[in-house]
Amino acid sequence: MDRREILQMLALATVALPSLGANSSQAHVKFDPTAPKPRFVMLVHPDMVLLDLVPALTTFALTMGEVQLVWKNRQPVPTDVGIPITPTAVFGEVQAAPDVLFVPGGLRGTTACMGDDEVIGFLQRLAPSARFVTSVCTGSLLLGAAGLLQGYRATGHWQSREALTRLGAILAEGRVVRDRNRITAGGVTAGLDFGLAIAALIRDEEWAKSIQLVLEYAPAPPFQAGTPAGAGPEVTKLVSDLLKPSLGPLDQAVEHSRARLRQ
Amino acid sequence: MDRREILQMLALATVALPSLGANSSQAHVKFDPTAPKPRFVMLVHPDMVLLDLVPALTTFALTMGEVQLVWKNRQPVPTDVGIPITPTAVFGEVQAAPDVLFVPGGLRGTTACMGDDEVIGFLQRLAPSARFVTSVCTGSLLLGAAGLLQGYRATGHWQSREALTRLGAILAEGRVVRDRNRITAGGVTAGLDFGLAIAALIRDEEWAKSIQLVLEYAPAPPFQAGTPAGAGPEVTKLVSDLLKPSLGPLDQAVEHSRARLRQ
Repeated sequence: MDRREILQMLALATVALPSLGANSSQAHVKFDPTAPKPRFVMLVHPDMVLLDLVPALTTFALTMGEVQLVWKNRQPVPTDVGIPITPTAVFGEVQAAPDVLFVPGGLRGTTACMGDDEVIGFLQRLAPSARFVTSVCTGSLLLGAAGLLQGYRATGHWQSREALTRLGAILAEGRVVRDRNRITAGGVTAGLDFGLAIAALIRDEEWAKSIQLVLEYAPAPPFQAGTPAGAGPEVTKLVSDLLKPSLGPLDQAVEHSRARLRQ
Repeated sequence: MDRREILQMLALATVALPSLGANSSQAHVKFDPTAPKPRFVMLVHPDMVLLDLVPALTTFALTMGEVQLVWKNRQPVPTDVGIPITPTAVFGEVQAAPDVLFVPGGLRGTTACMGDDEVIGFLQRLAPSARFVTSVCTGSLLLGAAGLLQGYRATGHWQSREALTRLGAILAEGRVVRDRNRITAGGVTAGLDFGLAIAALIRDEEWAKSIQLVLEYAPAPPFQAGTPAGAGPEVTKLVSDLLKPSLGPLDQAVEHSRARLRQ
């Protein structure tokens, strides 16, 4: 990458992103309009987990890409932490062949989308022309419900990812799993590792490392409880037992999707 | 923690947060109104970095706390990635003695706040009654400008944290630095490690570990470029050289703040 590109990238670290249009109150960086810009299409949906979206969004933005936040309409979608996200485009406005199609998670929102023909139809139309088809957290279940992971190795949030196999995927180890042009990541915070991996693919390794340094991503969790093995049986059982009732509707959505995919 | 509390906590992982009031379009969890709830006051400011806020916000919410996003007025503040955040309270509405006062970063937004008497006055009024006074990223420079880190060990974003010493702080190693009731974290993504540390202090270690497992925070960055040492001299020089011009206004704000603190 040349120094001009990096200058633009770093300037972005403290400015609003022009590509988000109506949501952006300020646009301070002027890009060279002749330079090719990677294009990112990010699904946003009601009851999504905001922390599934923001790390990926930040790394996408720092590739100097154009980002669209897409949904059925432009009504703000609620998120888990009460901050609504306003879509910047509706399904019908999204052009074919984005560099990245991205699907975030959030148990309840994912479950609702899996049974929503309009969402499934959008993903099925756009995915074949996308350079990379990607997800974080339970988003992979939605990709699976759209039939986009059949025969692909994939992952998702530890608590529900087993269900991927019922949608034709091959469950794989790894925080970020790539199989051909499908790239799926683990739960919530895996979006950071995912975002850097995407930056390296879309730009290059040096660019991705520059983003990592800007974001000071040198993690040092105070505990090692990010996986069931690390959390130990007691914490894992606690979390699993109590999440279990929420998994009923998801299970139904998986069965519904599986039946539809067999038709 | 008892099972009822954990049940509430985990339910929150997929629902909107009632405490964010006007921003929250849905509120699915009813809390026991007699249970004590920790209270989090989070400054939001124009040109803040959204990824400074969201990990801390998510972990705070998962302690079953009440979160206020506060600013001078209720106008949405723009963020680095173009997603505006609508404050849920104005300075004058914030009650004394929160459990946590939190300040996010973002180079340009921090610089502007450092020279803003209304912001400085708010922090100076609230901090003495807060149980913990905290920041992520360049937010520590704003705490420093308010005179709240004089004689305290502290940290911040690697690229600008040296300036903390000019505001009376003692620069300390560590991704999350605690000195008495001041807790400051490194750049951007340090907010995850910070959030879990706060959860352990506000609730307990088991609760914090449960949050970590829900968020699947078992980081595995594809590169080791999150610190200057890890990124190596070439990437570090690239990033440093190009950020340098943006540091001029910050440097002026530090000098202005230092002069005011000496009066």
